[in-house]
Amino acid sequence: MISTGDPAGLGPEICIKALAEIGATPGFKIVPVGNFETLDEAAALVGYSSPLAKRTSLEDLEDPGSNNEVLHVEMGENVPRASESAAAGRHTYRILSTCTQLCLEQRAVGMVTCPINKASLKRAGYEKQGHTELLAELAGVTSVETVFSVERLMIFFLSRHVSLRDAISLINRESVLAALLRMDRSMRGLGTPRPRLGVPGLNPHCGEGGLFGREEVEEILPAVEEARRQGLDVEGPIGADSIYHLGLEGRFDAILSLYHDQGHIASKTRNFYQTVTLSLGLPFVRTSVDHGTGFDIAWKGLANPESLVRAVGLAVEVIQRSRHDLVPPDSGPR
Amino acid sequence: MISTGDPAGLGPEICIKALAEIGATPGFKIVPVGNFETLDEAAALVGYSSPLAKRTSLEDLEDPGSNNEVLHVEMGENVPRASESAAAGRHTYRILSTCTQLCLEQRAVGMVTCPINKASLKRAGYEKQGHTELLAELAGVTSVETVFSVERLMIFFLSRHVSLRDAISLINRESVLAALLRMDRSMRGLGTPRPRLGVPGLNPHCGEGGLFGREEVEEILPAVEEARRQGLDVEGPIGADSIYHLGLEGRFDAILSLYHDQGHIASKTRNFYQTVTLSLGLPFVRTSVDHGTGFDIAWKGLANPESLVRAVGLAVEVIQRSRHDLVPPDSGPR
Repeated sequence: MISTGDPAGLGPEICIKALAEIGATPGFKIVPVGNFETLDEAAALVGYSSPLAKRTSLEDLEDPGSNNEVLHVEMGENVPRASESAAAGRHTYRILSTCTQLCLEQRAVGMVTCPINKASLKRAGYEKQGHTELLAELAGVTSVETVFSVERLMIFFLSRHVSLRDAISLINRESVLAALLRMDRSMRGLGTPRPRLGVPGLNPHCGEGGLFGREEVEEILPAVEEARRQGLDVEGPIGADSIYHLGLEGRFDAILSLYHDQGHIASKTRNFYQTVTLSLGLPFVRTSVDHGTGFDIAWKGLANPESLVRAVGLAVEVIQRSRHDLVPPDSGPR
Repeated sequence: MISTGDPAGLGPEICIKALAEIGATPGFKIVPVGNFETLDEAAALVGYSSPLAKRTSLEDLEDPGSNNEVLHVEMGENVPRASESAAAGRHTYRILSTCTQLCLEQRAVGMVTCPINKASLKRAGYEKQGHTELLAELAGVTSVETVFSVERLMIFFLSRHVSLRDAISLINRESVLAALLRMDRSMRGLGTPRPRLGVPGLNPHCGEGGLFGREEVEEILPAVEEARRQGLDVEGPIGADSIYHLGLEGRFDAILSLYHDQGHIASKTRNFYQTVTLSLGLPFVRTSVDHGTGFDIAWKGLANPESLVRAVGLAVEVIQRSRHDLVPPDSGPR
């Protein structure tokens, strides 16, 4: 399922553009979820050639090979475009709860989300800090981890929405080791049997042996050594200006970003539109674009659907890998 | 001139590979500077087809269109390959002083440098911290600024080799404003008449209005506002995970990296081999690759010459722009 997100933003148009680009996906039925009339207008805006079909329940879906059957969510009120509103927030919430419900009932295997607008949700009375937190609440779980995927590399985060000063204070042997153990487990769960993990330095050139900054010597290296003793395949600390490049060249499967911007700058400067997020800890697969509702360009037909196409691709890949994992390793030819 | 740098490292082979790639550069005579026999061996190693010619002074150069005339620097002792040694340090120093001298005498318009090895220079008794500092000393200047160039974007640094904690402490209104004024002046000097400057945030999402981190509100924004009052074209603070992408898309000519890794991660993850440095403050143009001597791969013919090719291109461009600037703006057709 694709949650088309905030109807006032660029979600509907990137969804339609992405559907056109994705085409048939063997073994998967891709269903956009949102207000039919809104999506139909977005289709007209971007000149989408094949007509959308309105469906009001999953039972009504007719063609397993088509991406054009919209699971309709009633809007019931006018939603102003390209701006915040309580109406947009209410509709966004309805889309997300529909998607979550279908995933929880295992009638859908996962969801890919277009952007929402926090301010609109707040106006509608939904106070949760972000998209992932809202989905966690709807799914009844408390701890969800956000991971970045860019090209073949996964990026995990030691901390996220704290000041850089506070993020530095959160770096210690225990936190780095715990993160590495969690990464190793998660990567195995995602189908990488022996993940190669990389740990960057915090300071320029990893502090050059303690010359400028001692976190590498006192906290990061000991954590890496302990993780190795526990059997993990970990390298580091490696200068933060090389390690993401090395990871993208194939040396690592996953890298631990020591603070929010470290991994964000790396992935989004490398490839802004190919950086997507994966949520770990929800009882279903969820991937998402990592950009906002773009009110400055929304409903002008300008928005770039590349992130959404990539997010759909990642969801399909993760689901396929986990399906493969359900087959016992020696039950048949490899 | 191309300083071929440390003879034990990958300098000689990337130099030869780059010469093959660069070809004729109208208006410029490119002269590799280093030990002739060493370069000749590197040429054999990488299968360079056209023979090198040994020249012992600039007066001996014969063919203005050829890149194959090596300005020979005597070695006089054996230099072990792919490892540190005082002999390598002594030879490296001789190459750098030859290049600097010719630039100071204005017999050469600039130099492009291959990597040196600090440890080898130290063994040879040269204690300066880095390549740029050594050139500054040889040229008799005290203050040289290192700027990154990646694709069409320049990156300036508020601080470099200090711990991340200390780098945060160095961010204040005065330092940011001074850096912006310096950037504006430098960019004009480099031929951009009205440079568009960008300033990133320090904290995730620029601290979300002071929610996590107050540097944006208290220091960075006031500095940007003051710079604007003084007539500069500056935007910011903008989230560090977007601004480098925006700059690379053409919105900015130069961005102020608030700490070493911010701009390093952005440029080197974006394009490791296309990130080169430009030194400002030397009495001649100097560009450089931004990687090391690579003893792990040196003298195996494996090294990638892309950075050097790009560094030569940048030097040519900077020299051409400054030549153009010597012509008064209304002295002829535009």
